[in-house]
Amino acid sequence: MSEPAYVLYYWPEIQGRGEFVRLALEEAGAAYVDIARLPRSKGGGVEAILRVLRGELGPHLPFAPPILQAGDVVVAQTAAILQFLGSRLGLVPADPVDQLWVHQLQLTVADLVVEVHDTHHPIAVDLYYAQQKPEAHRRTRHFLSERVPKFLGYFERVLETSGGPWALGKTFSYVDLSLFQMMEGHRYAFPRRMKAVEPRLPRLRALTEAVRHRPRIAAYLASERRIPFNSDGIFRQYPELERRAPEKAAARARPAKRRRTGK
Amino acid sequence: MSEPAYVLYYWPEIQGRGEFVRLALEEAGAAYVDIARLPRSKGGGVEAILRVLRGELGPHLPFAPPILQAGDVVVAQTAAILQFLGSRLGLVPADPVDQLWVHQLQLTVADLVVEVHDTHHPIAVDLYYAQQKPEAHRRTRHFLSERVPKFLGYFERVLETSGGPWALGKTFSYVDLSLFQMMEGHRYAFPRRMKAVEPRLPRLRALTEAVRHRPRIAAYLASERRIPFNSDGIFRQYPELERRAPEKAAARARPAKRRRTGK
Repeated sequence: MSEPAYVLYYWPEIQGRGEFVRLALEEAGAAYVDIARLPRSKGGGVEAILRVLRGELGPHLPFAPPILQAGDVVVAQTAAILQFLGSRLGLVPADPVDQLWVHQLQLTVADLVVEVHDTHHPIAVDLYYAQQKPEAHRRTRHFLSERVPKFLGYFERVLETSGGPWALGKTFSYVDLSLFQMMEGHRYAFPRRMKAVEPRLPRLRALTEAVRHRPRIAAYLASERRIPFNSDGIFRQYPELERRAPEKAAARARPAKRRRTGK
Repeated sequence: MSEPAYVLYYWPEIQGRGEFVRLALEEAGAAYVDIARLPRSKGGGVEAILRVLRGELGPHLPFAPPILQAGDVVVAQTAAILQFLGSRLGLVPADPVDQLWVHQLQLTVADLVVEVHDTHHPIAVDLYYAQQKPEAHRRTRHFLSERVPKFLGYFERVLETSGGPWALGKTFSYVDLSLFQMMEGHRYAFPRRMKAVEPRLPRLRALTEAVRHRPRIAAYLASERRIPFNSDGIFRQYPELERRAPEKAAARARPAKRRRTGK
């Protein structure tokens, strides 16, 4: 077997940020290895990631996975990986202004991903969710009422401006894959909230279905390579976080407001 | 007066994320207008930003400031702006691998900036700090003990690997300006913690001094164009957040741990 063109280093049990990269590699039909999902005997497992984080792949030390190796190039940061892959894999047009715009949108997806993560980890990434539950409740409440409509409404407006079906209009690009993943993740993690907001997001819904039915993506989603959503990833299904009614939320927020005006 | 080459749209009262862009424009001696700092009668003020957020600069709708306009190009997202400016202003080498590495580092600075912001806003950006003080205490405690050493230790190791004085070794690039800003911000916001960790960061300290004394940066820092750090920005001086002793912090965390094992 010949060397694969790309080696992805990402946590083997979750979709996480790595999934945005996996979707791009899959859509392009790229030859890649998701190395930490191989057995340790074949150089896989989490140990493969730790080797890169120790600097064994050269001077461009990554801070965290996902990390992509492509020959001599080692690159981390999801949006930077996608920017690098995008032009190599034909997942973005050649026009640098288009490329910059797609990258800017990808960075906004990345910002949203941080906020989703922090709904269950508002205090510290080093603590378990169960150690920060009251704060997670409060953060999720604000996230669902303020941030979900703001971010998803923004992406809907981007599709409206482009004319759709994709972020670049008639031209498909890697950020469309990320918008699909973002929608699917929100549906998994926040089904009640999504049921309420999706009627106002017809273009995002159409994009999500169109990505789902692209032949290589459909094959990927049906394969064992697609790790199911689960409660170790970024999008987690903790129904208790969605359950609190907005009116109760408002009532709970009042003492904090009093504290503020008392200062 | 001829048209300036660049128009920066950023909140006029704070350094914030816009400062990373301002530093790059200043270092390059670029002709730019920091438009929201102009009076409203000259098209300035916050209203100038709101116009762009409404889409008045064309189809590439930004999600949030900073936003840069360069002729027909309108780009948002700090790291994307710097990537765009870097090659145009000679603040990054021509080698695409170097450019990708500098961008990757910039994205890691951006991740750290989000975490700094969330020390005072762990629950919601729409609430005031005073409305989320207990959570801010808890988040800051973990940030100072876990994340500050991890992030700053990482950047120190990058400089060690490059041989210094800059992230690319002998070649200066825009991420060095951002590392300067990151160090200065931490010193303002977390003086006690920085006093403790700086002895282990000799290369970051040397880089910070070297940036401070670059002629155009020195002139900028001495000018009225440099907005002082203040408690509306990302780096805020809330001494109470630094004051809690780590032992007390550990004691406070215990009930949460009990709750977890009880599940």
